Amino acid sequence: MENSPARQPSARLDAFVDRYAARTAGMTASEIRALFAVASRPEVVSLAGGMPNISGLPLDVVGGAISDLIAKQGPVAMQYGSGQGVPELREQITDVMRLEGIEAHPDDVVVTVGSQQAVDLVTRVFCDPGDVVICEAPSYVGALGVFKAYQCEVVHAEMDADGLVPEALRQAIRAVKAAGRTIKFLYTIPNFHNPAGVSMSTPRRAEVLDICRSEGILILEDNPYGLLGFDAEPMRALRADSADNVIYLGSFSKTFAPGFRVGWALAPAPVREKLVLAQESATLCPPQFSQMAISAYLANHDWQGQIKQFREMYRERRDAMVDALSDLMPAACRWNVPDGGFYVWLTLPPGVNAKSMLPRAVTARVAFVPGTAFFADGYGTGAMRLSFCYPTPERIREGVRRLAGVVEAEMELRETFGATGPDPELGSRGYDGPRSDLS
Amino acid sequence: MENSPARQPSARLDAFVDRYAARTAGMTASEIRALFAVASRPEVVSLAGGMPNISGLPLDVVGGAISDLIAKQGPVAMQYGSGQGVPELREQITDVMRLEGIEAHPDDVVVTVGSQQAVDLVTRVFCDPGDVVICEAPSYVGALGVFKAYQCEVVHAEMDADGLVPEALRQAIRAVKAAGRTIKFLYTIPNFHNPAGVSMSTPRRAEVLDICRSEGILILEDNPYGLLGFDAEPMRALRADSADNVIYLGSFSKTFAPGFRVGWALAPAPVREKLVLAQESATLCPPQFSQMAISAYLANHDWQGQIKQFREMYRERRDAMVDALSDLMPAACRWNVPDGGFYVWLTLPPGVNAKSMLPRAVTARVAFVPGTAFFADGYGTGAMRLSFCYPTPERIREGVRRLAGVVEAEMELRETFGATGPDPELGSRGYDGPRSDLS
Repeated sequence: MENSPARQPSARLDAFVDRYAARTAGMTASEIRALFAVASRPEVVSLAGGMPNISGLPLDVVGGAISDLIAKQGPVAMQYGSGQGVPELREQITDVMRLEGIEAHPDDVVVTVGSQQAVDLVTRVFCDPGDVVICEAPSYVGALGVFKAYQCEVVHAEMDADGLVPEALRQAIRAVKAAGRTIKFLYTIPNFHNPAGVSMSTPRRAEVLDICRSEGILILEDNPYGLLGFDAEPMRALRADSADNVIYLGSFSKTFAPGFRVGWALAPAPVREKLVLAQESATLCPPQFSQMAISAYLANHDWQGQIKQFREMYRERRDAMVDALSDLMPAACRWNVPDGGFYVWLTLPPGVNAKSMLPRAVTARVAFVPGTAFFADGYGTGAMRLSFCYPTPERIREGVRRLAGVVEAEMELRETFGATGPDPELGSRGYDGPRSDLS
Repeated sequence: MENSPARQPSARLDAFVDRYAARTAGMTASEIRALFAVASRPEVVSLAGGMPNISGLPLDVVGGAISDLIAKQGPVAMQYGSGQGVPELREQITDVMRLEGIEAHPDDVVVTVGSQQAVDLVTRVFCDPGDVVICEAPSYVGALGVFKAYQCEVVHAEMDADGLVPEALRQAIRAVKAAGRTIKFLYTIPNFHNPAGVSMSTPRRAEVLDICRSEGILILEDNPYGLLGFDAEPMRALRADSADNVIYLGSFSKTFAPGFRVGWALAPAPVREKLVLAQESATLCPPQFSQMAISAYLANHDWQGQIKQFREMYRERRDAMVDALSDLMPAACRWNVPDGGFYVWLTLPPGVNAKSMLPRAVTARVAFVPGTAFFADGYGTGAMRLSFCYPTPERIREGVRRLAGVVEAEMELRETFGATGPDPELGSRGYDGPRSDLS
């Protein structure tokens, strides 16, 4: 076949199509990915991506710390390291987690290639094909992708303004158990949820911990945004009150920078041992240079002060977004006002479909992620995720203005063509994620 | 359970033991890993590890390139990037591969977290539990670990001084097909094999390509050492003559430094698309900072001159090892003289077991990796891998001196206790990897 002029670079003629693993059928491009090409055009205001705005990082400090690292410890930083991660960094990670009430030993921390890899490794260690993972509705698209790639079944449990609804969790557990299926864990993002923007209230945390303990269900607590709250002190992590039944995932991607790809898992000792073995098989070891660079940054810089700056910057953008939504969006739209993180979850007027609207939005030079990306089961058609993390306040307002115009045009279209009865795509399914008390 | 005084940090009481995925049973610590703790003591001469000696890298050049990178492109280098990898680096990777006769398009390169992750992602995309991977006998321990973690069955095919034996490959294929099993690919390390130290001869390459083409078997060509030949020009890669049936894996870990964890896969377009999806699921994207650091190093430094220095340094160490083996080892031992790479494969006198000898070797302050680590099926008891990459020539000679003493003591023990008949651990299995023409 080689050197044949008929060779096709396209996947349409895939000579390997019969040879892939069964799991590969579950590997499909996310709805977000398909957007990146258009959303990254400069004329488009992207409210789609989740890229942190790291322009405020002190490049001189970072550059100095890394130069020093290379000069003094270059041959160590550029060498292979431990599969579990650099001990000094794992020690520092326990300091970071202490801000959320977690007392942990560095031995129980496993460094990962971003917390995305932590989701992958935990799923690898726990999930056989057909196992069930319970997720909030909606949930993080990247985690849903992992669960799909490991051939898990995702069962969603509803949220409201206080986060995961305990009764919905109980119902989901009952239904899965009644069907004779195995639940491997609850995947939850308790703080400044991606994409829903809400946080789990303190009473809810206790209740969710109780339910999972009594039902024998492990909790995977994914917490990339916990330190990015705008008003109050960080909330107490689920892990802080349940060391033996929670695997906690953290990340430097939002509190420092994502380009180093350093996240971590904190796990009960037997699980941690499995995660280290899985990490060694996956990569031999996470990048030593990245880890030591972050360690040097943490040691030589007021990283908590930096996080405070990030929080203020993101609060300003959150304000720009919710102010613009209040001023400009049609009254029938609903959204929440997040207390931290990167995202607003917006519910459209009944009958307006976010996904089918998206091409027209991009034509109007604004991008968002349709709600369906955050559901494993086709729900979310009437909602969207709006990110306020990356564009400037002025651009956010301009993006919302464009979006409002598109939504209004959709509503007129609906009216003109007399949308009676339920949307055929929505069917009778009314749930599009947590609705807000604020319009 | 939490906060209970009875909480056990040990894996012996693993509350999760019934909850792991089936694949997790296949995740066990490699024989190499168990060694690291003892072998890293300064008094032990470790001929066990495969760490490159990067002390010759110009720290000022690397430091300058990275400082410059942070100052000029910091916010890009520290941001999320593409799941496929940085375009400029992928372009440079095609230049590297051209040294081995490969003409490739950067679009077909996928950057990975070391080439270990490339093995993981290829296996993820292709292998269902029970699928067969054909490997050389012996083969790279890290790849065997991946295949095991994906519940593949490894079938070994013998090598000799010219590499993989075509007739052994044919036999293996026939036997697997006769058993009704599915072969997903041949995993081969054609250059300066880890651990066998041999290279596949040019006629063999053509024959192996032919066999795999006519049998419809994909080839996974793992080539971390190809540019580290001591005498001749780099050999032509298998991929150079079979663009459509070979996935080629490369790495900067041995030609530059492993601490950045940057390797790559070059794959036919449809496979490459799957690998990008798998990478996005595994890590979102490989470390952007690492990639741009290596790209800057390649752009601003005589990297080929650096590789030449590495080759000369490793040749000197190879010479130190084979000279010491000739001078000091009992005559009944056999080994090969590698033309490149990091490893010598040593076959012990009949009846001497490398694995059971290891604790006594460590007591004598020398470490190696027993041959069994490199077989999926328990073979290799009478052989070991000796690395000459990391210790100085003087330390290598001292290590071989210690090892020779241990082997002699083992042989005396055998003689005293009259080892008649086959070793009970060896049974009737005589194959311990390629024997050498040199004693």
